[in-house]
Amino acid sequence: MPQIEQSAIEQSSNARILTVNAEILSVGTELLLGQIVDTHAPVMARILAECGIGCTRRSTIGDNWDRLVGALQESLSRADVVVTIGGLGPTQDDLTRDAIAAALGDEMEHVAEYEQELRDLFASRGFRWTESIARQADKPKCARFVDNPHGTAPGLICQKAGKVVVALPGPKGEFDPMAKGPVRTFFEGLGGGVIHSRTLRIIGMGESHVEDLVRDLMEGENPTVAPYAHTGEVHLRVTARAQTREEAEALIEPVHQQIRSVLGDHLFGTDETTLEQSVVDLLKSQGSLVGVAESMTGGGLAARLTAVPGSSEVFRGGVVTYQLAAKVSLLGVGEATLKEHGPVSEAVAREMAEGARRVLGVDYALSITGNAGPTSDVDGKPVGLVFVGCAGPDGVEVQEQRFRGVREDIQRRASQTALSMLRTQLAAAAQKG
Amino acid sequence: MPQIEQSAIEQSSNARILTVNAEILSVGTELLLGQIVDTHAPVMARILAECGIGCTRRSTIGDNWDRLVGALQESLSRADVVVTIGGLGPTQDDLTRDAIAAALGDEMEHVAEYEQELRDLFASRGFRWTESIARQADKPKCARFVDNPHGTAPGLICQKAGKVVVALPGPKGEFDPMAKGPVRTFFEGLGGGVIHSRTLRIIGMGESHVEDLVRDLMEGENPTVAPYAHTGEVHLRVTARAQTREEAEALIEPVHQQIRSVLGDHLFGTDETTLEQSVVDLLKSQGSLVGVAESMTGGGLAARLTAVPGSSEVFRGGVVTYQLAAKVSLLGVGEATLKEHGPVSEAVAREMAEGARRVLGVDYALSITGNAGPTSDVDGKPVGLVFVGCAGPDGVEVQEQRFRGVREDIQRRASQTALSMLRTQLAAAAQKG
Repeated sequence: MPQIEQSAIEQSSNARILTVNAEILSVGTELLLGQIVDTHAPVMARILAECGIGCTRRSTIGDNWDRLVGALQESLSRADVVVTIGGLGPTQDDLTRDAIAAALGDEMEHVAEYEQELRDLFASRGFRWTESIARQADKPKCARFVDNPHGTAPGLICQKAGKVVVALPGPKGEFDPMAKGPVRTFFEGLGGGVIHSRTLRIIGMGESHVEDLVRDLMEGENPTVAPYAHTGEVHLRVTARAQTREEAEALIEPVHQQIRSVLGDHLFGTDETTLEQSVVDLLKSQGSLVGVAESMTGGGLAARLTAVPGSSEVFRGGVVTYQLAAKVSLLGVGEATLKEHGPVSEAVAREMAEGARRVLGVDYALSITGNAGPTSDVDGKPVGLVFVGCAGPDGVEVQEQRFRGVREDIQRRASQTALSMLRTQLAAAAQKG
Repeated sequence: MPQIEQSAIEQSSNARILTVNAEILSVGTELLLGQIVDTHAPVMARILAECGIGCTRRSTIGDNWDRLVGALQESLSRADVVVTIGGLGPTQDDLTRDAIAAALGDEMEHVAEYEQELRDLFASRGFRWTESIARQADKPKCARFVDNPHGTAPGLICQKAGKVVVALPGPKGEFDPMAKGPVRTFFEGLGGGVIHSRTLRIIGMGESHVEDLVRDLMEGENPTVAPYAHTGEVHLRVTARAQTREEAEALIEPVHQQIRSVLGDHLFGTDETTLEQSVVDLLKSQGSLVGVAESMTGGGLAARLTAVPGSSEVFRGGVVTYQLAAKVSLLGVGEATLKEHGPVSEAVAREMAEGARRVLGVDYALSITGNAGPTSDVDGKPVGLVFVGCAGPDGVEVQEQRFRGVREDIQRRASQTALSMLRTQLAAAAQKG
């Protein structure tokens, strides 16, 4: 593997703060034509910002040789760092490797050892080998490979004539770990200061209400405070600029505390702490088990809980009772209750929560029944009408809600309500206990 | 309101087909830094394609005067049409109107009638007037306003020296109706043909394998054929250029049939027909019911099935057995089986599928048990090892798989496998029946 050229940027990285500029180039005709939405470029832009590297432009180019080389050359003429996303696969329209070499005036070389690794991998898995796969062992001479444990196309870090080009693969399962792992580490070395944010997550209040309560803090300059509305929750982003992450954290902390004193229990977590994570944490600390019974969310509530790492300690299981027969056979909901009140009713939500608590043998059980649309009223129950139940050691609580929005919004808000009800019960139990 | 200048493009629009090129420029620091994802640019790219206008580049620029004017000038030097999104509001960082005038070498003018309209509107609604609102009545001289019934900032269509710049507002509720309404109508006049695609969805084959089989078709120019890898499936996009959508469809159809004859049953659907949709369709046509039992997918398989409109006719329900106790109590999996083989095993997948078929009273039941990570081996079972069961009228089939990727990939591939197995069984039943 060739020696890495020490670029001007690397040599001076300690001396400067926030003077390194980057551009992001997303590659792919599917992206360009809008057939898929580019979620990777925003992730990369945030990583650059957090590493103190200013992002000045993002562009999207199709799988077209002349346009891709042209766009790379233009970006290199304006920026110190160019990050490409996509076009590293084995097929004919994966042009990024060669285009980077052309734009940097470099030659390509073939890394025979890596081709052998790929051949061994394919042989051990019994996958079919085709010659095009070997293209993924090509790279510009000035580049080093970035390991891709989740795919066959390695990333590239190219350094030549004071410029840096970093190339990442497009598939999400490969892009995310590479961007957040080795590429981020590389950028932390390039930057010279940090822009660091903490996101405070709030439930049970609208955006304007939150904004009214923290308006004076929103006028600060370092850190800045900005509200963002999401389905069923509000986020406040507190952002500081400093030489180190620790210094930025020290600027953020007192503002976080002020916001906590104003919003109290509505503030349920920070950064990646989702509502389901905060519920799992509370269940763990109390040694309690939970289960769910859902219909219109179709497995979505269970999926949110099981997405939390370590949730298997506290989440026993769930039932998805999509047809009426399943409500009766799996949960013991009374046929008379269904007949009298209909499946979208306070009584059925109550029996679902009680039934789930019983059949799963858990401390707490959540239930959701409702009409998420998209078609109109079901048995006279309008779209958006939802009953959410929470059964615990002290009995069952049921909330009736009318949610607006499309199907996914109504489902999301229903599971937010269920998790929020459980969080409130767990918090009360903690205070009592 | 000033007369619209007749540009070279408009005058010759009927004479040419697909020679008009466009670039899209999204404006806003929040977009550039990745704090919000740009969903408007893909919408605009699709509209351009459907109007027969080729989109060759998309860019994102922050609210910075020099960079915005520079980017506009570069785009105008390459493309006939530039579409800007965002930056039309009343605040100081809304620069797009003035930047377009600067890039086109035009002057600004103030439309007093529109300022009066705004003042009347604010007065009638009881909104507070501030002087900055009047900026929205400014425009380049060569521009005409595009009515914005959902906001106060009108769009712009600017035509000068053979170039066209179209400016749309950023808020979704304003962008969408303007893009899909008057702006689309304008582009239909500019284009002179259509670019139309059909996506063919393939399961059970890797991207390179598919490419090998259809390589000769990939060399065609109209329609073009391009492969795209997704988690657990491959898409082939067939794209034709023609005067009308019907003519494009007529070009695509024979290529579609050729691909079908080569790939056979691996081709499961087109365009928006997901694998779960194709399974629900087959179940409906056979009048069969399905249920699921899952652990490591945590409700995700049920969620995929219930996301299909009308799935309640064929999906009875599911159980999410996350802890061992739930496998026993809900599905009747034998404690001895769990002890002898462990939860991630062929035997447990088999008993889960059989149990789900029995307790749910359905014709077909799918089961998934495995280790999706992210932590390492569970009971000696490595990350990625998954057993997928499918129980039907003719017995139970279980597949053992080793998947790569992060947790979400492994979960996705597991549910792809389950749905694919069911699809195969249903197809066989249809042939028999």
